[in-house]
Amino acid sequence: MANILTPDTVTAAMLAIGDELLSGRTKDKNIVHLAGVMTLKGIDLKEVRIVADEEAAIVEALNALRSRYTHVFTSGGIGPTHDDITADAVARAFGVAIGHDRRAMKLLGDHYAARGLDFTDARKRMARIPEGAELIDNPVSIAPGFTIGNVHVMAGVPSIFQAMLDTISPALEGGARLISKSVECSFGEGDIGAPLAAVQQAHGETAIGSYPRFDGKSYSTEIVIRGRDEAAVLSAEKAVRDMLAAL
Amino acid sequence: MANILTPDTVTAAMLAIGDELLSGRTKDKNIVHLAGVMTLKGIDLKEVRIVADEEAAIVEALNALRSRYTHVFTSGGIGPTHDDITADAVARAFGVAIGHDRRAMKLLGDHYAARGLDFTDARKRMARIPEGAELIDNPVSIAPGFTIGNVHVMAGVPSIFQAMLDTISPALEGGARLISKSVECSFGEGDIGAPLAAVQQAHGETAIGSYPRFDGKSYSTEIVIRGRDEAAVLSAEKAVRDMLAAL
Repeated sequence: MANILTPDTVTAAMLAIGDELLSGRTKDKNIVHLAGVMTLKGIDLKEVRIVADEEAAIVEALNALRSRYTHVFTSGGIGPTHDDITADAVARAFGVAIGHDRRAMKLLGDHYAARGLDFTDARKRMARIPEGAELIDNPVSIAPGFTIGNVHVMAGVPSIFQAMLDTISPALEGGARLISKSVECSFGEGDIGAPLAAVQQAHGETAIGSYPRFDGKSYSTEIVIRGRDEAAVLSAEKAVRDMLAAL
Repeated sequence: MANILTPDTVTAAMLAIGDELLSGRTKDKNIVHLAGVMTLKGIDLKEVRIVADEEAAIVEALNALRSRYTHVFTSGGIGPTHDDITADAVARAFGVAIGHDRRAMKLLGDHYAARGLDFTDARKRMARIPEGAELIDNPVSIAPGFTIGNVHVMAGVPSIFQAMLDTISPALEGGARLISKSVECSFGEGDIGAPLAAVQQAHGETAIGSYPRFDGKSYSTEIVIRGRDEAAVLSAEKAVRDMLAAL
């Protein structure tokens, strides 16, 4: 794959946290959602990691990712039960204190009072926010996420993850939008491999990917041309179509 | 989450490779499949990473994972086009040579000859196998995966990934099967957080996870008790049910 990053490219990584994602019990739905939103913002999602609900694993992955990418998004582990350890792990990763945040305590306290529910110690866990973090509004279920440094800590429940991402997305530093063109063909990759490599070679400002499909009987291929310069992408797309027409 | 690993626990990691997974264009289907198979084998899947089709990213992730876990499984990037760079990256990670493997050349040559198809240079790319690797049979579309050291390199197309995993799974070193019990309840996590933490505290041989669901109006929770000692899991399950009945 050609490298279409520029020095000012805005990058991102995701850290999905949860034993249930690694046991096969739950199928993650947040990665593909984040990936789509990042693409729209012109941000290159470069890496995803999934780790268990274990503090050491979360701290290590978070520190590796936050030093390397413009933005890091986490999902999962910010609820009220004993296995929700993300906030504490993030505080540990940043080397800051953590306690019951006054803003979050007020949000949650008002919320439960209005519903006549006890503001239990478990629920108060959701107000544990690392020092120096900004809250992320949660219009679905009140309990906030938070941003500290370049790390955005969000819920694992997909509807809440998406709502929190909607909250922060407008203010996120984005980049030049990636332009993408897709060409379907009924050739297998074995037929187009060599000429497609030549097209890629001649169009270095674009990244040309080739994605095989197999329906149990025969192959087809989707060719995707991506880049940040529209003329370059359109020129590479034409070259791909001409190449296919000549086969 | 309680640590239910024992010193002889068999662990695994997955490395999913492909720009299309990070752009949101393709939704990965292999992670959850591998996770389910690992659980059946008694192997703890501890980490998943998704990286782009970039050699440096693949090499770094692979070397980090293979030094740490019993097994590493990769998906993607072993087809015939220029963006299929996984085999070369794996050879680089292991510091071994790579070339057209004689066994793979024969498999593929016979296959294309029988179909009257040219054995193009692109198709020959699929016979590039790092020195010292064992081939993984591909009953779906012939082009083999391979195992080198503790790393199993497989296709990204889900039907082929699954077939290759079926090929190698019987011979994989497994572990003591994890026993899992699930208890559904209509309480939100905020109601059960404190008593559930007490149950976890009293049942250290099990790992008790709590998974909230939100239907747009109200919460429910699935509580999952996991462990390798059946009596311990059943005892913790009973404690969870008693705890819920007392609420």
